Amino acid sequence: MKYLVLLRHGQSQWNLENRFTGWADVPLTEKGESEARYAGRLLKERGFCFGAAHTSYLRRAIKTLWLALEEMELMFIPVQPTWRLNEKHYGTLQGLNKAETAAKYGDEQVKLWRRGFGVAPPALDPSDARHPSHDAKYNDLDAALIPSTESLSDTIQRIMPYWDANILPSMKKHDHVIVTAHGNSLRGIVRHLKNLTNEQILEFNIPTGVPYVFEFDDNLTLLKDYFLLDEDELQRRQAEVASQGKASK
Amino acid sequence: MKYLVLLRHGQSQWNLENRFTGWADVPLTEKGESEARYAGRLLKERGFCFGAAHTSYLRRAIKTLWLALEEMELMFIPVQPTWRLNEKHYGTLQGLNKAETAAKYGDEQVKLWRRGFGVAPPALDPSDARHPSHDAKYNDLDAALIPSTESLSDTIQRIMPYWDANILPSMKKHDHVIVTAHGNSLRGIVRHLKNLTNEQILEFNIPTGVPYVFEFDDNLTLLKDYFLLDEDELQRRQAEVASQGKASK
Repeated sequence: MKYLVLLRHGQSQWNLENRFTGWADVPLTEKGESEARYAGRLLKERGFCFGAAHTSYLRRAIKTLWLALEEMELMFIPVQPTWRLNEKHYGTLQGLNKAETAAKYGDEQVKLWRRGFGVAPPALDPSDARHPSHDAKYNDLDAALIPSTESLSDTIQRIMPYWDANILPSMKKHDHVIVTAHGNSLRGIVRHLKNLTNEQILEFNIPTGVPYVFEFDDNLTLLKDYFLLDEDELQRRQAEVASQGKASK
Repeated sequence: MKYLVLLRHGQSQWNLENRFTGWADVPLTEKGESEARYAGRLLKERGFCFGAAHTSYLRRAIKTLWLALEEMELMFIPVQPTWRLNEKHYGTLQGLNKAETAAKYGDEQVKLWRRGFGVAPPALDPSDARHPSHDAKYNDLDAALIPSTESLSDTIQRIMPYWDANILPSMKKHDHVIVTAHGNSLRGIVRHLKNLTNEQILEFNIPTGVPYVFEFDDNLTLLKDYFLLDEDELQRRQAEVASQGKASK
């Protein structure tokens, strides 16, 4: 048996402020740090013992991983950070308050920007200080790969080469592998593993801080997938995520 | 110009309790965590921007690195942990109080065990719970490589292959590289870089939590080395380390 665990980072400062985050590199809140530690303790209790870890270039995902690994006494395992697991890039919306944006443009437009499979928010101008080309993290990256905005489709397209070249080989080598990342980048992996349609993945909400376990046989055929959380708590958290783009919130 | 920074972890729980630590995987104290953060802020102020990091399999060194990288906003760089950068293995002394051991065996015997270049403390029996073969971290390691005790000479011998195969290539690739590790494993690197004799390296004390900078030209010829600390504070800390094995402390 082989296990892949997906873990979406817990509450970040901008989740708390209900702002579009994307590639903005904001830290976890204290609540977010607690969620990460809790996930680590839960995974340890259930006997997970990761041989390798993958995460994004964004500190909220990396810190989530570090805190979980610290709880699990697995700080020594190889951790591979990659820009390809970053959150969807939200273009000019990054930094804006979601409720204000929804009040201004309407819930439907915001839902399209957040969840339209092929719809990207307005692109950031390369001169905008928020553009990733001004961030030293991406200095070594081919300029053509650096996004100014992304649709969910774009996000998934840049994740899949990393899945093929890094995560899959890592699962062949190790029985337990963990990926800590973001709502939309993890959607790319879930869509691939569960063979979902564009519509299905758009409606699929991954709760924060809850380990999402995929169980495989030794040939990496998916057997089942489940959240490490009881059903009531899971539904409450999924509803919370789904409501974040609404002006009324 | 190329830079290598060596950083010895700050105070651990057993430093505080004055016990022989070696491969025992004890956490940093709060003071140790502050030392690591301070080192990170200092390195950032001085303009260091690491492209890669190396550390041991022991949490006190890994946590030191993580805290420094967090202060430097460099959490996304590749971090390579390795058992080869672990502290010298102290055999049956691991866990014993240094002052008690010195009172029992005498300062000179303890100094020999701690600092005799080719002298190893009594070996741990493989059945001893403290033996590394019982620690999941070393499961993938060839049993012949797992030590039951080590002299400083043994420690340096197991570090050098990692220096050649990993740290040196990393320095060729990146202008700034950091290694966080332990008093004796870092001695191996210092001895090599400064071409010191066995006697000289035995007397060379690396203070905890103080970045030790090696400056090279682009062909990796060493130009100079210095601690990022003013001279008075440096001497105070070196004296502190030198006095740790004495019964009177």
